[in-house]
Order: sequence, then structure tokens, then C-alpha cells
Amino acid sequence: MARIVQKFGGTSVADIERIRSVAERVKAAADAGDQVCVVLSAMAGTTNRLIEWTREAAKLHDAREYDVVVSAGEQMTVGLLAMVLQDMGVNARSWLGWQVPVRTDGTHGSARIAEIQAAEIVKRLEDGQVAVVAGFQGVSPDGRITTLGRGGSDTSAVALAAALEADRCDIFTDVEGVYTADPRIVTRARKIDRITYEEMLELASQGAKVLQTRSVEIAMNHQVRVQVRSSFSQAPGTLVVDEAEIVEFEVVSGITYSSAEAKVTILAVADRPGVAAAVFGPLSDSNINVDMIVQSASADGRSADITFTVNRGDVDRALTCLEAAREELGHHSVIADDEVVKVSVIGVGMRSHAGVAKRMFTTLAERGINIQAISTSEIKISVLIDAEYTELAVRALHSAYGLDAA
Amino acid sequence: MARIVQKFGGTSVADIERIRSVAERVKAAADAGDQVCVVLSAMAGTTNRLIEWTREAAKLHDAREYDVVVSAGEQMTVGLLAMVLQDMGVNARSWLGWQVPVRTDGTHGSARIAEIQAAEIVKRLEDGQVAVVAGFQGVSPDGRITTLGRGGSDTSAVALAAALEADRCDIFTDVEGVYTADPRIVTRARKIDRITYEEMLELASQGAKVLQTRSVEIAMNHQVRVQVRSSFSQAPGTLVVDEAEIVEFEVVSGITYSSAEAKVTILAVADRPGVAAAVFGPLSDSNINVDMIVQSASADGRSADITFTVNRGDVDRALTCLEAAREELGHHSVIADDEVVKVSVIGVGMRSHAGVAKRMFTTLAERGINIQAISTSEIKISVLIDAEYTELAVRALHSAYGLDAA
Repeated sequence: MARIVQKFGGTSVADIERIRSVAERVKAAADAGDQVCVVLSAMAGTTNRLIEWTREAAKLHDAREYDVVVSAGEQMTVGLLAMVLQDMGVNARSWLGWQVPVRTDGTHGSARIAEIQAAEIVKRLEDGQVAVVAGFQGVSPDGRITTLGRGGSDTSAVALAAALEADRCDIFTDVEGVYTADPRIVTRARKIDRITYEEMLELASQGAKVLQTRSVEIAMNHQVRVQVRSSFSQAPGTLVVDEAEIVEFEVVSGITYSSAEAKVTILAVADRPGVAAAVFGPLSDSNINVDMIVQSASADGRSADITFTVNRGDVDRALTCLEAAREELGHHSVIADDEVVKVSVIGVGMRSHAGVAKRMFTTLAERGINIQAISTSEIKISVLIDAEYTELAVRALHSAYGLDAA
Repeated sequence: MARIVQKFGGTSVADIERIRSVAERVKAAADAGDQVCVVLSAMAGTTNRLIEWTREAAKLHDAREYDVVVSAGEQMTVGLLAMVLQDMGVNARSWLGWQVPVRTDGTHGSARIAEIQAAEIVKRLEDGQVAVVAGFQGVSPDGRITTLGRGGSDTSAVALAAALEADRCDIFTDVEGVYTADPRIVTRARKIDRITYEEMLELASQGAKVLQTRSVEIAMNHQVRVQVRSSFSQAPGTLVVDEAEIVEFEVVSGITYSSAEAKVTILAVADRPGVAAAVFGPLSDSNINVDMIVQSASADGRSADITFTVNRGDVDRALTCLEAAREELGHHSVIADDEVVKVSVIGVGMRSHAGVAKRMFTTLAERGINIQAISTSEIKISVLIDAEYTELAVRALHSAYGLDAA
């Protein structure tokens, strides 16, 4: 007997028929004697329609009212699943964010969970009742509904698993688990059986869409065993666990790509101390995150070119910032380019194996792919390349690190 | 400057375009210096779709979960209206039932409002903020969402007007006000300018669909001035007020009809003391409301026929009750008939004018319409007739009491 959290996304609850399939899975676990807490998203499409309405209502909308509108989605699915479960003879009840309560900060639209008071749910789980909790939503310190931002139901599920001290948190999705690369691009990609929190965190933040980054952070901090698995099969999926639970590491676990960033290049900046601060200070003040940075001396030796990447949505604001600093920077011009992609190789094995970076650069060079910027962490190397080469680069690297399925 | 409650139904908030029209009306009142509390229904069609989902989910569903699902409708509209108002420069915020809070009893699906704690809303109204409150919903003593039943937003609006000590409660609808008869049947029906609470209560409970009965009760008990008016025009509508505010009464104010009831006749019941108790006791124990009752001696003088009406939805249960009491009643058989309609004439003037009933019976007799049952109150006479004669009876009575528009 275990205490488990089961999270189902929007495609798994898209209509009553699918909600019934979810109920059958929940019932199977409950019948087997497990204590089950279910976390649901809104029906696929519902959240998008609600967001569309808020856009029609007002261009610049109050995030507090936005949260009132979009949180209606999960409210429907939790009520419906609780009904279907009861109809199958399973003792169940729904819980909205404010009822649990899932307490968050007041950052409407992308709130962070501060605390989950789960005592009442624990008591009911122990009495054999299934809890059906609305994901994605919480309640602010002043009693208003908050939402956690896109993919927030993963975060709700993992945070609930932590608060309930659950034995496992199953994230049900429309793929079989976490793959060594996007299977739509790399046909020989393999499902990963076990992966460390650190690797999963890099995969999630470098473009793998299977888990929300924030949910992996919480899982890592609270040592929640997360399993990513398919709603449509009984296969075991991918287990995200502590390093100690993994006996042998691959050098590289996976290859990701992300088109979320754009490249900004400032040409002919005066090459003197303080220039970097003059560029990046104002960007930071405007809450614009800068990822990769390259500075190269220009031909005349008296000036430099600076290249960096920002989120695509921030490009216009970044250009405005730089324009405001033109006098101080004395630069010639600025070029923005969003025809770029960031490709990353990720693996904890990198820490003990030399030559991982060299293999990456060699592999890309052999295909004639130019590297425009590089960033690294202890377990990750990312390169920025021309977007046209995305598939070629990902497939070549997948082979080069021996990840191809037999 | 006045404090007003404005309630808009589902057709008035059916899409963003119409929500914008509502916002303009609210803004006009706020700009004129009024303190405005808006009460909204769900978008037309939304509640029906949500109810349909609950039916698909489970035949016998938990009313607590039903309330979770269907209350999502008003949640969307209040958030959207608050956004649109803010976009127009009006200070506004949304309130869900549990946020106000609107405290109800625990009768899920048809809860009664116990108390509205309106101090915070009053404070904000005085500070110039428009309150946008979700109608139809409240919160039970144990913190779960409740709904007030069909048309419950009228009740929310009037109860809020009472709690806020509002000067007026405007019920915006798709007709111009309360009419002397259903204009779809009686082309010469007239809009009523002023009507008493008592008359409105009879009109609402005898089939006029313009206001929920419960909302009129609350208005009467708390002396809330209710105005029924059109969302689509600036015409003043119908004012529902205390008798003291009306100088001259019509003898009859309006004619209504209702197809909500069915007739049950028990043939040849033993004619002895205690029989009525044996018939109506079990019905009452099963929470079946009986309206009209007629007892007539049968030909042999030793038995009687008993006819009564119940809500159509209760017919099957009523028949089961009677079957269970067959031994005690010793009756011959039971006939149920739902091809009947109840036609009522209503007016406080009846109290001081004789001959109202006589005119009704004469008018119907002249058209060859047989009266199957009669019930009366101080300001109302209802007759049960064959449903085929509905339009004929209503039109004839409308003329007979001098209600036809010139």
C-alpha cells in the first residue's frame, strides 16, 4: 500500500469519455489499496479559449481577474471526475485551490506555491477517500484566486506529493516518458528509464516539454519520486529520482533543442571597462533574462561586438533598452535574429568524463554547422546555431553520443 | 447619488460584445455618481452545457460536485466584466460567492441564502469601486460551493440589495418588464408600470417567468425596490414595490398560465373519515407538494373521487406512494393526466371588489371550457383546464378584465 499522487493533463480529461478512462485508472489504484490524490488540468482547449476571451475583453488585463476566469477550467474537470468516481462506487471528493488551501504568493498569472495545508486531505486519504484536486490554481494571501502559469498543474502535483509525503507522483501524459531526444525529430530516440533530478531540470529548462521546470525544482528539493508515464498504456515510464538511486550513468542522457530565444548582436561597442555593465545593467533592471553571452574584438581592435540571447518575447523591450543606452555605449548598430535554435547535450556523467564538449563541437563542425554562442553548466553544454540545422544537429549528436536505439 | 444593484442574465452576457454593452451601462451609472454592485449569470448556454456534462458523467450525481461544476459559469463572466470595466477606466473587481461570502445552507443544487456578509463590499462601494458579484452561487457551512437553483441569480441580486441596503435592485432581462399576460400569447398585453410584492409573488409562482419566486419573497421581506427592465433599452420597466406606493389598483393585474403541474385522480376511494390523511400524509412524507384538491362524491354515495395536482416531475413518485397505500384507501384505480394547464387571475384589487371569480367562471363557460379544479388565495384565483384551451382562456380573461391595450 502506497500513497500516490496522479496528475492528468488536459488531453487526458478532454471529454467525459476520457475522464471515465482516468477514473478507471484511479479506481484500479484505490482498489489495490493505495491512497490516491488526483491532480487535474482543464479540458484540452478550455484554458486556451478562456485566455482568448480575456484577450478579447481587454488588451491590458488585470491579472487578478485573468486568474478568476482561467481557473474555471480545472473547476469543471475536478467536479466531473469526482462524480464519475462516485458513480463507479469510489469514495471521492473535489478540492479547489482555495479549499485545500494551496497558499501562494500574490503574483497573479504565475504565482509560486508558498504552503499547502494538507492535513484534512491526509485524514481523508487515510479514511479511504480519493482526493481530486484542481491543479494550476491556489489562493493569494488576500483571498483571491491565483494561477501558477502554463504547465502549473505539474507543479501543483509535485508540491502536493511533497505536502502529503506521498511515496510517488505519477505525471500522466500523452507520451511514454522522457526521451533521449524529441521522437518527432529523432526516430531512434529511446525512452529513459531513470533520470536524475539535475538532468531532468536541465532537460525541462532546455526545451523538453514533458515537465514544467518549477515542478522538477520542487521534486528535487523535497525528494519527491516523480514518474512520467503514458495515460494510454500501463508501461512504467520514466522515473525521476536522486542520483543515489542510479547505479550507472550514461555520459549524456539526452539532447534537447529550444526555439524560445532570439539572438541580439551589438556591433562596434567601445572596448573599455564598464561596457558590459552598461549593456546588461539596464536589461536586468527591466527584468529581461539574458542567457548566452559572447564578446569578440572587432577588426580595428578598438571596439568589440557583443552577442547575447533573450526570450523571443523580450526582444523589442531589449532593443528599447539598448537604444536608451546608445550614448554611453557608442555602438554602431544592433541586429536581432530569431532564426536561431539552442541545442543542448545533458548528462550527469559529464562531470566524470572528459571530451564531451569536444565531441559536440567536432560533430557539428563535420556537418558544417556554425556555432554562434556557447554556454555550459556542470552537466550541460548548449550551443546556439542557425535554426535551419535543428534536425540535422539533434540527430547527429544523438548518434555521436551513442544514444540511438538498436 | 444612489446605491444600486444591477443584475444581468445569461443572454445579456452571452459573449464579449454583450459583456461590453453591460459594462457601458454600468459605467454610465458609476459616472453618474451611483454606487454600483453588479450581479451576473453565466453566459447563455454555458450552464446548460455544464449540466449536460454532469448528466453524462453520472446519472445519480453528488449534488456537491454538481455545484462545483455548474458554478464555473458565473466565475468566467464576473472576471470578464471586471476586466472590461477596468479597460474602460472603471475601478472594479469580481467577487465569487465564497469570497463575499454569500453564506447558504447545505442544500446543494437549491441552497437558500442564510446570510450575506457585505461589509467589505460596502466599504469598497463607498470608495468608488464597482463590485461584480457572481450570482447563483454561495458557500455552505462546511466551505463547499453551493448553487441556488434555476434563476438563482435573481435571488442573489435581491439578497445582495437587502444586505447592502441598496436604494434599488434593477433586474435586466430580455423583455421590457412585467406584462399583464405572456405577450407571445396575448398580443394586446400591456407592460405593468408598478406592481405590489404580493401580486408579483403570485405572478412568479403561477407561471410568469420574469422573476424567481424566492427573489420576490426576499424583496418583500426586506422591502427591496425591484425594477424589472430591458437590457436593450433605456425604458423604465416595471417597479415592484410596497402597496403603500401604489395609489390606484387594477382589480386584476395579470393573467398567468403554468404547465408545470399534472393532475392525479383517485377513483372510488372509501368515503370515510381519515381518507384524506391516508392520501396526502404519504405524499407529504415523500416531499411531494400537492397544490389543488377536489373531492367529489361518486354515484353510489359510499365512495368519493379525489383529484389533486402535483409537479409533473413528481407524478411517478406520487403514483408509487398511492400504490403503497392501496390497502388502506381501497380505491378502484388512479389516473394521471399531464394535458392540463393552470390559469390564474391575480390582483390585490380583488380584496375589495366582488364578482372577480364570477366573471372568470362565466368567461370560461361562455367559451365552453370546463374547469377541473379551483384554488384561490386572497389575491388570486386559479383554475385547472384542458391544456388545449390555454391560449383561448388567457386571451378571453385578458379581455374580460379590461386589460387589453387600447
